[in-house]
Amino acid sequence: MSITVGYIAAFLTTAAFVPQAWYSWRTRDLSGISLPMYTMFTIGVGFWLFYGYLIGSVPVIFANLITFLLSSMVLGMKIQQIMALRFNR
Amino acid sequence: MSITVGYIAAFLTTAAFVPQAWYSWRTRDLSGISLPMYTMFTIGVGFWLFYGYLIGSVPVIFANLITFLLSSMVLGMKIQQIMALRFNR
Repeated sequence: MSITVGYIAAFLTTAAFVPQAWYSWRTRDLSGISLPMYTMFTIGVGFWLFYGYLIGSVPVIFANLITFLLSSMVLGMKIQQIMALRFNR
Repeated sequence: MSITVGYIAAFLTTAAFVPQAWYSWRTRDLSGISLPMYTMFTIGVGFWLFYGYLIGSVPVIFANLITFLLSSMVLGMKIQQIMALRFNR
């Protein structure tokens, strides 16, 4: 039972970043996105990735690799937007 | 070593939601926030909470309880904003 619950949880908290990455990409509206959040979260997911490697768990590595790519995408767009605003003044 | 890496990962991916919840609360700017993301993510964290209960892990319960509260806050503000827009037409 707990394994199933764990897989559902991992799927939802990983897949959740797909609509955000798509929404940010499509609308380029990142004003409501917190830069500190995505910075901390992306680094944190990087640590989960390293954790998965250390314990030799493919599901942990796989889920966090996807989350890492998606949250890095949002983070990259947010940084790009901040740079654009700063240098267009 | 892996335990330390896991705790750092858990701390970062949990604490990351504090600046987002604070930013959303302070600015009420949630236009860039994806409703499907926060809906899926909050439900997913709920499953992690249940998973922590099933395996009897206090750190998993504690970290996900905080994340659940913070992501629910952002989700609630986003829903509130959508309702306000819909009924103010």
